[in-house]
Amino acid sequence: MADTVLDPSAWTCPAPLREQGVVVMGHGGGGALSAELMEHLFAPAYGNDVLADLADSAAVELGGTRLALSTDSYVVRPLFFPGGCIGDLAVNGTVNDLAMSGARAAFLSCAFILEEGTELEVVGRIAQAIGAAARAAGVTVVTGDTKVVDSGHGDGVYVTTSGIGLIPRGVDIRPQRAAPGDVVLVSGPVGMHGIAILSVRESLEFGADVTSDTAPLGGLVSSMLEVAGDLHALRDPTRGGLATTLNEIAAAAGCGIVIDEHRVPVPEPVANACGFLGLDPLYVANEGRLVACVPAADAEAVLAAMRAHPCGTAATAIGACVADHPGGVLARSRFGGTRVVDLPVGEQLPRIC
Amino acid sequence: MADTVLDPSAWTCPAPLREQGVVVMGHGGGGALSAELMEHLFAPAYGNDVLADLADSAAVELGGTRLALSTDSYVVRPLFFPGGCIGDLAVNGTVNDLAMSGARAAFLSCAFILEEGTELEVVGRIAQAIGAAARAAGVTVVTGDTKVVDSGHGDGVYVTTSGIGLIPRGVDIRPQRAAPGDVVLVSGPVGMHGIAILSVRESLEFGADVTSDTAPLGGLVSSMLEVAGDLHALRDPTRGGLATTLNEIAAAAGCGIVIDEHRVPVPEPVANACGFLGLDPLYVANEGRLVACVPAADAEAVLAAMRAHPCGTAATAIGACVADHPGGVLARSRFGGTRVVDLPVGEQLPRIC
Repeated sequence: MADTVLDPSAWTCPAPLREQGVVVMGHGGGGALSAELMEHLFAPAYGNDVLADLADSAAVELGGTRLALSTDSYVVRPLFFPGGCIGDLAVNGTVNDLAMSGARAAFLSCAFILEEGTELEVVGRIAQAIGAAARAAGVTVVTGDTKVVDSGHGDGVYVTTSGIGLIPRGVDIRPQRAAPGDVVLVSGPVGMHGIAILSVRESLEFGADVTSDTAPLGGLVSSMLEVAGDLHALRDPTRGGLATTLNEIAAAAGCGIVIDEHRVPVPEPVANACGFLGLDPLYVANEGRLVACVPAADAEAVLAAMRAHPCGTAATAIGACVADHPGGVLARSRFGGTRVVDLPVGEQLPRIC
Repeated sequence: MADTVLDPSAWTCPAPLREQGVVVMGHGGGGALSAELMEHLFAPAYGNDVLADLADSAAVELGGTRLALSTDSYVVRPLFFPGGCIGDLAVNGTVNDLAMSGARAAFLSCAFILEEGTELEVVGRIAQAIGAAARAAGVTVVTGDTKVVDSGHGDGVYVTTSGIGLIPRGVDIRPQRAAPGDVVLVSGPVGMHGIAILSVRESLEFGADVTSDTAPLGGLVSSMLEVAGDLHALRDPTRGGLATTLNEIAAAAGCGIVIDEHRVPVPEPVANACGFLGLDPLYVANEGRLVACVPAADAEAVLAAMRAHPCGTAATAIGACVADHPGGVLARSRFGGTRVVDLPVGEQLPRIC
């Protein structure tokens, strides 16, 4: 293996990546550049089908047990922000990725890359937030790792969480399963996490405080599964926001999606901030919301179950999956106009999670 | 939660950590400073018993299946070194942590933190090495994540792998189970990984080339389990080397360990390099070796099985667990003298893995 990896000629940059040549911030944005990296660089190198699913978590079978495995690194800046910190974000993010396959997170691992010189108090507060978030989500942190890099090669604290959880018998939730006729639900107001981060990063005031929506969604998903065993697709619209998530579902399922833009719940301070900054709230990150594609017959019951749960009180139907324009997402305005909601290339706000 | 984490008074630095106040390189060295961080900062914050075991991986039960979960972040510098790169290191490291509880790694996750401006060719070669190492170890990379940090806040590529594997029925391998009377085995020559890294980092020549011993140990452990169902303790002597591993086992088991120093296999170029640099080979990192504590009755059969496996051809017995000096490790010289082999405080070589 040494010979292969030490020989620069052993890897040829695939054509779609060649233009960049180097890593750009957008490769971490969860949009088209991230997808290119996955499709042309990682997937061919690892060479397997599970990865090609590109879901938030992988469903695997081990010892006759069906479980989900998920991982995410967190590099959010700043480490503490209104509504949370990198610690609870790292717990909730992985808990939610597991929940999006119907799995209830059971065990987490937590690996730190600390920058030399970071105050131990900062690390301590983050560790406490991890513990508190884990307890709130009903998950146990069972193993971890700590590495330290020299000053100037990190940014205080990076955290990588991984998690496993049981997928209940009979549950098969994947973006691929969204189908024409499905109703598209969103569990609450969008754009709060991204705007909360931006407000502290750029020291902006938007008239009213916006706090991150970071929250664990395992309980909400369980409530939904109780009333409708056959949820088709679930996804949490994090990096790249609602627009990216809808595009990913449409692409995976090979269907189109149409949303009524005025039905998407955007809190007024988020709308104001987006207007002021020239951002589209559909592209702003969320950390405690989910999008569900549900057979029309189940939609009302699922929506009622969501609204009865603390994480879904403002749940609402925003659109539907359609047979037209497969892979594409359209937004209808209140006045009847439509616009294409594209997959973003990079990201609006780097290091949002 | 926001209130708690945003309030700096909510966390008080525990006394044993107060002297440093900030993160130092040694906190990532796997020695006493790392252990302090785990004991006084992470374990109280997470608050659970599994973590307190401090094993390389956590043994958990999920849906009636006993499995091991492990994670490690890799920040090795340089990214490519004689015998491997950060990619195969990240696969083998997590595969080996699982193997140390008797589990055969089944599925891996792989999360990248890339520094803006890193050549995609470098990322591509590392991904290929990950794929090749996974195939060699019989494990599948099923999920991943990519984050990008601004230039000057990373160091090219950091990788965090997590893995799960089945623990075979009846197998209970933990450092705590080492017991007086056990024979201590090591699977091959020590110090190679650390010296290989150092040779390229400092552009040193040691007369002969030393390559990293990075290798997956799942197959070796399976061979050992075939001849002796009741291996007591297994551990791979990575950061902090053989000395740290022996100290950890002694502390966890509450027994003493005595080794015959001249029986520890140290390749001549490693010994030369250590002499030249003033390093003790017992403290230099390995990435493809294991230490086993085995009941005396099984030791010969286990040793034979190890020697019959490509990863254990040079396996040898180096000492024994004893009832004396619980928690302490002694090394006997060829001439009858003894010395205490302490747990290192920090690390000899930062960013070795």
